[in-house]
Amino acid sequence: MNTTKDTALQFTPAAGFWKERTDAVIYKAIPYQWKALNNEIPGAPGSHAVQNFKIAAGEVKGERKGTIFQDSDIAKWIEAAAYSLRFKPDAELEGIIDELVRLIEKSQMSDGYVNTYFIASSKTSERWSDLVMGHELYCAGHMIEAAVAYFNVTGKRTLLTVMCRYADYIGTVFGQGENQNPGFDGHPEIELALHRLAEATGNKKYAELANYFVDIRGSVPNFHIGKAAMEGMIPKTRWFGSDYYLADKPVREMTNAQGHAVRAMYLYCAMADQYMMTKDEPLLAALKKIWGNVVQKHLYITGGLGSHPYGERFSIDYDLPNDTCYTETCASIGLAMWAWRMLSIEKKGIYADIMEKAVFNGILSGMSLDGTKYFYVNPLKLLPEVTKFRHDHAHVAPERVSWFDCACCPTNAARFILQFTEYLCSADTDGLWIHHFAQGRAAAVVDENTIQLEMKTNYPWDGDVDIRLVMDKSEEFSVYLRIPHWCSKYTLEVNKNPILDSAHKNNGYICIRREWHSNDIITLKLEMEVRFIQTNSNVSENAGKIALQRGPLIYCAEETDNGKGLHLYSIKTGKKACLVQDSSLPSGTIAIEAEASFEKDTADPKDLYFEYVSDREMGSKTLRFIPYYQWGNRKPGNEMSVWFNISH
Amino acid sequence: MNTTKDTALQFTPAAGFWKERTDAVIYKAIPYQWKALNNEIPGAPGSHAVQNFKIAAGEVKGERKGTIFQDSDIAKWIEAAAYSLRFKPDAELEGIIDELVRLIEKSQMSDGYVNTYFIASSKTSERWSDLVMGHELYCAGHMIEAAVAYFNVTGKRTLLTVMCRYADYIGTVFGQGENQNPGFDGHPEIELALHRLAEATGNKKYAELANYFVDIRGSVPNFHIGKAAMEGMIPKTRWFGSDYYLADKPVREMTNAQGHAVRAMYLYCAMADQYMMTKDEPLLAALKKIWGNVVQKHLYITGGLGSHPYGERFSIDYDLPNDTCYTETCASIGLAMWAWRMLSIEKKGIYADIMEKAVFNGILSGMSLDGTKYFYVNPLKLLPEVTKFRHDHAHVAPERVSWFDCACCPTNAARFILQFTEYLCSADTDGLWIHHFAQGRAAAVVDENTIQLEMKTNYPWDGDVDIRLVMDKSEEFSVYLRIPHWCSKYTLEVNKNPILDSAHKNNGYICIRREWHSNDIITLKLEMEVRFIQTNSNVSENAGKIALQRGPLIYCAEETDNGKGLHLYSIKTGKKACLVQDSSLPSGTIAIEAEASFEKDTADPKDLYFEYVSDREMGSKTLRFIPYYQWGNRKPGNEMSVWFNISH
Repeated sequence: MNTTKDTALQFTPAAGFWKERTDAVIYKAIPYQWKALNNEIPGAPGSHAVQNFKIAAGEVKGERKGTIFQDSDIAKWIEAAAYSLRFKPDAELEGIIDELVRLIEKSQMSDGYVNTYFIASSKTSERWSDLVMGHELYCAGHMIEAAVAYFNVTGKRTLLTVMCRYADYIGTVFGQGENQNPGFDGHPEIELALHRLAEATGNKKYAELANYFVDIRGSVPNFHIGKAAMEGMIPKTRWFGSDYYLADKPVREMTNAQGHAVRAMYLYCAMADQYMMTKDEPLLAALKKIWGNVVQKHLYITGGLGSHPYGERFSIDYDLPNDTCYTETCASIGLAMWAWRMLSIEKKGIYADIMEKAVFNGILSGMSLDGTKYFYVNPLKLLPEVTKFRHDHAHVAPERVSWFDCACCPTNAARFILQFTEYLCSADTDGLWIHHFAQGRAAAVVDENTIQLEMKTNYPWDGDVDIRLVMDKSEEFSVYLRIPHWCSKYTLEVNKNPILDSAHKNNGYICIRREWHSNDIITLKLEMEVRFIQTNSNVSENAGKIALQRGPLIYCAEETDNGKGLHLYSIKTGKKACLVQDSSLPSGTIAIEAEASFEKDTADPKDLYFEYVSDREMGSKTLRFIPYYQWGNRKPGNEMSVWFNISH
Repeated sequence: MNTTKDTALQFTPAAGFWKERTDAVIYKAIPYQWKALNNEIPGAPGSHAVQNFKIAAGEVKGERKGTIFQDSDIAKWIEAAAYSLRFKPDAELEGIIDELVRLIEKSQMSDGYVNTYFIASSKTSERWSDLVMGHELYCAGHMIEAAVAYFNVTGKRTLLTVMCRYADYIGTVFGQGENQNPGFDGHPEIELALHRLAEATGNKKYAELANYFVDIRGSVPNFHIGKAAMEGMIPKTRWFGSDYYLADKPVREMTNAQGHAVRAMYLYCAMADQYMMTKDEPLLAALKKIWGNVVQKHLYITGGLGSHPYGERFSIDYDLPNDTCYTETCASIGLAMWAWRMLSIEKKGIYADIMEKAVFNGILSGMSLDGTKYFYVNPLKLLPEVTKFRHDHAHVAPERVSWFDCACCPTNAARFILQFTEYLCSADTDGLWIHHFAQGRAAAVVDENTIQLEMKTNYPWDGDVDIRLVMDKSEEFSVYLRIPHWCSKYTLEVNKNPILDSAHKNNGYICIRREWHSNDIITLKLEMEVRFIQTNSNVSENAGKIALQRGPLIYCAEETDNGKGLHLYSIKTGKKACLVQDSSLPSGTIAIEAEASFEKDTADPKDLYFEYVSDREMGSKTLRFIPYYQWGNRKPGNEMSVWFNISH
């Protein structure tokens, strides 16, 4: 085995779970989102994002509309559409992208600048005047990612060239030299994008620019007293200090989750990219400290991040409200992207475990099963009447919606779900790594020896995984299989011979090193029990409560199956939960039934308070649980809860 | 017995609980608050309230400062100070009040108008331009209450005359005639004040003006589109519609708690005052419906009201968050004032029960034991770190403070605690009513027969109550004793002879009718067990939780006694709770100890989520509970909780 180090393998889902999720994106979400970006969804908030580029390109007249970062929706959609072409060649779709690229190129100013807000609003003199909230570098980053993706899939260079020109220009604008802008972005994104641009073009200077933005961060005084702050757009409160923008200290001094959750995740991705390039150990030490703080003290069981809605930000350690949380889809996407980079730095199962948690729960929940309705906020408890009335729930949508005024999540989910197919397997100098399980195939070309990896599994509905290796010639290398953290029992065979004794487990991966022959079959059986999960006792919100997990999936109960008043039920943890099929759920879905008890009323139902009767009669009820990522797909606006009291 | 109907008897506390509370107001709070109103408390927000009247009176130059309703703090302080003179004659204090009255009179405009905001700010042309938020009628109401109180206690008429002149003028300004203002106040208060003015002066026209304001309410279209709304001071959201100001419908059509909790309570008081005057049955029917909704679906166990901090308002039915609630001290005061009026309308124990709940818990909690520190918001759960960080807790003070920018509560608590001495006993044509229990005496003069009522009790620390009746001549009448809703067992004797069989219990009161002789002694023994209280199952916030109550007192646990992490403990409801003394609490205080269990950690403390182990080891801990009204009086800013999980 002699591939370049840490190569992500392109995986093609063949059937089952990931085929369904990627097909929903390819066949439904991408066409739907294109309509949304063109204001063609009746009743949905207008995006204006395509129109904005037409205006900026001078092809139509009109007022540029939408958020200051509306261009990024176009960029993420191009990225998603580009990935979809890998799985489903589509000349019409490619034509649409080419036309968009033409508009983007035409809108580009002579110095390289691309941004409809400042160009089409004739505010070009205000460029770079508000780094905190202006989002210019953020939009540039997403468009760079789009350019790289479209180039990687199609080989077409136009957008890549446009964005290289823009990146070159940005490199002249920012820096410590005379007449240069000494600042950096309020919303990280360009840094990780520049690393991708460096990789796609082979031009290291883009990565160096990324590293500059990371290294200068936190060292520019009064950075956050930008235009938006001065104009009152940013409230002058302790929630929006420079820590909010991850600009209060140099990145190597950071130790914990802070500020806006998505901004934080994208910065950590860039720091990891930079470490892979430079091997700067203080950078990795900071990343590990932050990682520990995030996953030990800020992570929802669904992989959600950002418990404080005001500012879409992190709260203090262990503060994890289930109903008022922000848990933005984009934050979970950012976490998965960061986890992937950490996994590339060191092959430890914890990174893939957290990635899997985020992907199978908090990310997939952001898009409806049919790809055309979205959650921005992913709560773990919903009482529809409370959510609709209360001001402190105003950020929570009680049902999936068609589009958002600030629509960062839908296109981000689309691009990520397709991109995840690159995160399943990788190869390095030592062998093949199976990080995640899905039906499909991938290939690694090594020294003219093409190794096909064919995975057969019904994962995550069961834990049986068959992997067939097909290759031109036999070769000795290692195959690393992740044993997920949630799994305590498993068996492993090669060509039906148990090999656990000879296999070596380390850091969450089992390593099988041998001479592999074509058609060798690895059979991994992960036992997938229903598990009752509780939370660290520092989390007051979940005291005395459990959640149900099976495999990587977190489950929730909905009013649709169980009626109103989910808070009334306590799970009987002594009883075994059952797996059931449910015709109202997508075919193949495993639902769970668990026994619960509830207190029969002892008092006048008109009494608000009454004496507790310790030996009162208890009722029994079978509660049905569905995978969290599927919630809100049936009857809209009904009660939902992940956490339940325990009945002893 | 032949007193006028429903006469409140002035009760003078002699020792024990109410002597301590009223002394704290008389000797500590009133002098302290006078300093606060004069900006003489170092570190506290400046009130400017006295200075404002000096400016308005033309005696000093300067800028009028503070909220638009700052005058009402002066008014409530005068009212409290007036009551204090009943218990402690004080020439110096009376001199201070007289000097204030002189300033108020001097500030009065020639047409009768009194209000420093509009006079001292030279905005007199803007008078009555913003009925929604201008608070002019609200300030007028409080100053009328002050005038009535000072007149009642001292017989001095100056302020009463000033306020009659103002009320006369208001009567010309508002009405349906040509050139009259057809509107009404955004914050009710003047109505109940005008009823008090009518009683004090014997002039019915003031009560008729009050009734006019009540009856016109909800019938003026677009009332709420006032100046403040137009200028953006009132957010244009669904939380600040006309329902918020109780202005969306005529009062007789109201059926449930709505809008700003204090505004609502003061309106209901006025409606009750009006009913007592007019016997308008639809008005009483509405009051009863609203009462039922408030106490069955909106009332915290502490007597707190207003669970929605945004707008200090009511939320939907059964929505009772414990940590983010508003539960303003003033709202509980308003509830007690309303309950008193309902009790005057019909002698049902439920009204006195709810009054007692509010007084002994949610009202007393608003003032520190020494009278000089205050809570505006009275939460039922406090995690100091969370409260300090989270935006949705920004309204919650984690510790008692010296003063507020908006300081409605401290003076309101001071005047109410003294006023409560009028709510303990009353007399009507049938006899004497004992609504509440306290050590002290009251007198009713009937047909030249003075009946002295001397109560000896250690209430609320125990439930033994001796009542001695001293009178010039023997007379047949009824004595009604409230048996509190919390009490299921009691004994009753007259002159040591059990008389329960011959006594008649109805609507929460026991009636003893007989010929009474001087020095007859009624002995009531209310059994006062520690009770575990649970909440109606519609309240999701309290599912599976209990609170501790003994007598009228709700208890809470504090970090000071129990350490951090109160959420970890589940109360063993099968074990009997014990009564204990605690030297860190005021002498006589009964604290409670209850056994609790807690889960011993089974997992790596670094794990945020881990598998639930059903038979894991449980720890035991004795938790100490203190009366809720005493919380936050020792170590500042520590954890507190009223509700606890149940251990079966």
